[in-house]
Amino acid sequence: MLRTHDLGTLRAEHIDQTVTLAGWVARRRDHGGVAFLDLRDASGVAQVVVRNEDDFHALRNEFVLQVVGTVERRPEGNENPALDTGEIEVMAETVTVLNTSAPLPFQIDEHVEVGEEARLRHRYLDLRRPRPARNIRLRSEANRVARDVLHTEGYIEIETPTLTRSTPEGARDFLVPARLAPGSWYALPQSPQLFKQLLQVGGFEKYYQIARCYRDEDFRADRQPEFTQLDIEASFVEQDDVIELGEKIVKALWGLIDVDIETPIRRMTYAEAMEKYGSDKPDLRFGLELTELTDFFKDTTFRVFQAPYVGAVVMPGGASQPRRTLDAWQEWAKQRGAKGLAYVLVQEDGTLTGPVAKNLTEFERENLAGTVGAAPGDCIFFAAGEARTSRALLGAARVEIGHRTGQIAEGDWAFVWVVDAPMFESAEDAVASGDVAVGAGKWTAVHHAFTSPKPEHLETFDQDPASALSYAYDIVCNGNEIGGGSIRIHDREVQERVFRLMGLDEESAQTKFGFLLEGFKYGAPPHGGIAFGWDRVLQLLTDSESIRDVIAFPKTGGGFDPLTSAPAPITPQQRKEAGVDARPEPKKADSAETAEQTAAAK
Amino acid sequence: MLRTHDLGTLRAEHIDQTVTLAGWVARRRDHGGVAFLDLRDASGVAQVVVRNEDDFHALRNEFVLQVVGTVERRPEGNENPALDTGEIEVMAETVTVLNTSAPLPFQIDEHVEVGEEARLRHRYLDLRRPRPARNIRLRSEANRVARDVLHTEGYIEIETPTLTRSTPEGARDFLVPARLAPGSWYALPQSPQLFKQLLQVGGFEKYYQIARCYRDEDFRADRQPEFTQLDIEASFVEQDDVIELGEKIVKALWGLIDVDIETPIRRMTYAEAMEKYGSDKPDLRFGLELTELTDFFKDTTFRVFQAPYVGAVVMPGGASQPRRTLDAWQEWAKQRGAKGLAYVLVQEDGTLTGPVAKNLTEFERENLAGTVGAAPGDCIFFAAGEARTSRALLGAARVEIGHRTGQIAEGDWAFVWVVDAPMFESAEDAVASGDVAVGAGKWTAVHHAFTSPKPEHLETFDQDPASALSYAYDIVCNGNEIGGGSIRIHDREVQERVFRLMGLDEESAQTKFGFLLEGFKYGAPPHGGIAFGWDRVLQLLTDSESIRDVIAFPKTGGGFDPLTSAPAPITPQQRKEAGVDARPEPKKADSAETAEQTAAAK
Repeated sequence: MLRTHDLGTLRAEHIDQTVTLAGWVARRRDHGGVAFLDLRDASGVAQVVVRNEDDFHALRNEFVLQVVGTVERRPEGNENPALDTGEIEVMAETVTVLNTSAPLPFQIDEHVEVGEEARLRHRYLDLRRPRPARNIRLRSEANRVARDVLHTEGYIEIETPTLTRSTPEGARDFLVPARLAPGSWYALPQSPQLFKQLLQVGGFEKYYQIARCYRDEDFRADRQPEFTQLDIEASFVEQDDVIELGEKIVKALWGLIDVDIETPIRRMTYAEAMEKYGSDKPDLRFGLELTELTDFFKDTTFRVFQAPYVGAVVMPGGASQPRRTLDAWQEWAKQRGAKGLAYVLVQEDGTLTGPVAKNLTEFERENLAGTVGAAPGDCIFFAAGEARTSRALLGAARVEIGHRTGQIAEGDWAFVWVVDAPMFESAEDAVASGDVAVGAGKWTAVHHAFTSPKPEHLETFDQDPASALSYAYDIVCNGNEIGGGSIRIHDREVQERVFRLMGLDEESAQTKFGFLLEGFKYGAPPHGGIAFGWDRVLQLLTDSESIRDVIAFPKTGGGFDPLTSAPAPITPQQRKEAGVDARPEPKKADSAETAEQTAAAK
Repeated sequence: MLRTHDLGTLRAEHIDQTVTLAGWVARRRDHGGVAFLDLRDASGVAQVVVRNEDDFHALRNEFVLQVVGTVERRPEGNENPALDTGEIEVMAETVTVLNTSAPLPFQIDEHVEVGEEARLRHRYLDLRRPRPARNIRLRSEANRVARDVLHTEGYIEIETPTLTRSTPEGARDFLVPARLAPGSWYALPQSPQLFKQLLQVGGFEKYYQIARCYRDEDFRADRQPEFTQLDIEASFVEQDDVIELGEKIVKALWGLIDVDIETPIRRMTYAEAMEKYGSDKPDLRFGLELTELTDFFKDTTFRVFQAPYVGAVVMPGGASQPRRTLDAWQEWAKQRGAKGLAYVLVQEDGTLTGPVAKNLTEFERENLAGTVGAAPGDCIFFAAGEARTSRALLGAARVEIGHRTGQIAEGDWAFVWVVDAPMFESAEDAVASGDVAVGAGKWTAVHHAFTSPKPEHLETFDQDPASALSYAYDIVCNGNEIGGGSIRIHDREVQERVFRLMGLDEESAQTKFGFLLEGFKYGAPPHGGIAFGWDRVLQLLTDSESIRDVIAFPKTGGGFDPLTSAPAPITPQQRKEAGVDARPEPKKADSAETAEQTAAAK
């Protein structure tokens, strides 16, 4: 080693010892004849005193030094109690420059604001700053404590392939040309879903993996084309077992930041979450529940409220919002695809004002505040129309209100399991929200095609898909989905019925999922699992603004990496060699393997 | 849970308890009126007694059952001491079929030989067999103990990107079209090399990752297009530090199979390994060192031995090989690209026979056996010609002799560090052995372009590349390279000199490695690391024939996956969407990011 001690570990007990240190110059102060360096390594910072001017004058910030010197007590009055090493300083005998540094594109300083593009282009400098470094270190600890829980519970870690066949799960696949089979392509997996299920068929019973996954999505806020999930699957389990395991993991993770999560964590049905919070990811750090008013307004004369659904959310103190703020709410709603956001202001004397108020009947005016729980001084926001979109609008308004009215205290944590989600949603809605429908049917899976119906819907889910509930459970933290899973289908016929409902004909089902259906023929055990969105978990744990802050080398929007400038053009030779332009001969076996596989598929 | 107990944990202490079990029917025996099932789960096997014929008759092998029953002591004489659960049996009260099984393509039985293609197509059945299951479980443990060592040593786990820019390291890259930047492509990394070095520039000092890596190679025996390495890098370390850490990991790994590896592990220079064993991966489980005879034959009249190098290896007892075996050796040598394998037989009376013997001078005949250490009854094999290829031939012959003459005892382990390898080899030789040269130069890196010269070659390596030694170290186990690493270059100028020597002009170096060179400008610390070939390590630990045996879902030759039939053709729509056929406009920035990056590169 080029050092005998880590800088951050030096204490009074080392006084009079000769030490060899290595690190970066974090700060330098020349006091004429004597100079002080803050020398930094991964463990911390210590003060080095250099008396040799020749040694000192050549040094610049971020030079890498090796220093041999003696640990001394700092002169009285010069101690720095803010620093772990603040009692001592190192009197340098020799200073060796291990490497120099050009002037930096930005300072290694927590307090300097630097644009993200510049930070990511020189990410190795950004990572020297305390906070990014801490984030990446905490991520390593998160891996460790999660694995500890899983090991204790008897789970084994298994790697699954990433050069594989497409596993359609609601997004596009990244594709990889196969040079040795020109015209054929691998797909990068959207998740290890099918493989982890086949591992259950294979009798492993308790699997986990911290798995890299890939989704070729159009730009969505704060997504990455490659991301990481803690992926778990087990046999002979029921929903409660997976939830219990998930809670142990969450408890261990939040323990890393000294937060004690109480378990069991509250559960809420999907229906309740949508009804009260207008979201399947309710932020339960605050109340502000929605009130459904469809019945309340059933005889209304106000045309806007003659709708299949009317609901409201109350903004405490919102009656005092100036007109331009109320106008801005209309803009806010329009950006979410709504026509606007109807509101009523409850004045201090109880009278209702605002453009909607005059359209209300006397009964409505007298009973509205009581029904929605609004007090004098509050604002009532409404949405009316189709239930799904109206609730979503109110749910978004609720979160906005929660933030604007300061209902969220720093350090608040609210976890909830959302259970009993619908099995299916209309394919149209799914595509509208940016997903890729797996089949050509009217219905597509809310979770994914491998999610089991709840036992009471097993017989009827394909006759009445709108009512069928799935054996799915999502864990939500502060309004973010941090994990989700389900009990899976393990019966080949049930799986085929789901595929049919989703509009996958037998041939497509065979092409896309034939190997799973084949596996289900040979004693597939009942099984289920969960996956945690690891980047999102770490974003929350580190109180970061973006998952980019918890990824060592993230990409920006559009999948661009400012550090390496990937993706990049390829050479014509690479293109030719990779077989990008080869077309496979249709329906003709061109290798023994293909022939066998064709035979097997028959 | 669908069970209260794991099958393999049932013992006499459970007698009289009612238990619920779940698992697969491994074997069934009908004794008329009473039937016995071996029920198997991940924990083991227990015997279930079924008295209800209706329950029993429907059952077939590999059906998945839930059994409620009472644990009873087996009748005297029926105990099975070979089975952990052999003292007890479970008297079934109810038997529920959780899933059925079609007749299997092959039996779940360790003793049945099944072709690999069939095993991999139904890998989930193959994995139910004891040995494959054990292999995958041991792999999980290997991950765990390696991480334990690294955690104890203060290493942190960091994920690096896999959708990235090509990191040329001697093989072709797999490419991924970037749909959002049509005409641009990502590359899958051949290793995290550049990122782990940049993490050192970023001040992490101690990094590790169990990393998926990708190499698009032509078929080589027992390689996989995606493979795993335990990847490690640290700052301020010297060769001894990395070697010491590597030995701790190896010790922990072999501890899993109750083998105590003595450390420090022997070290040998590359030169010695080539000279004595004809290989940079010497199998030291046996001796049979090569003897160089160039000097011995310096005045020979035998034309074949008038060569820049002559060497020999002795086969103990080889003089008694029948003629057709000696002929087969010639074939064996020809398959390795040699003209043949000259030999001399030392008869029991000390006379030399065989076709070569009559060409030897009297001096040579009298002194040969003594010089090479051959005893009466031995065979001496020769190679003559260019040193590199001749030694390789003798080295291969040595290993073959070791196996044929039974010099390798089961359970023998021989580890060695091979150090001081040459920095460079001729690009011609590298390409001949299947690598892709990174630059257009006469010389290419033996390890990779980021390996530091030893200090004594720092000034001269580009004037005298043939003599330059690198700061590299490989760990070899039983003749297999299981890990390799080096102290890296951390000086931008040294790195540029290496690139120049390898024939990368400034522009190519900038295009391919510009971000590394840029990083080296800002205080890059001295650093080094190692990577273990995790699949190979596990192959050795599990005593498997192939790395395919330690990968849950491996590919066969040519990168084909018999399970999913990947790779597969893509649809025209996928092709269109992925932007496969888009060509980027040359030299014209087509996005703000590209413009910035072009500017930055100037």
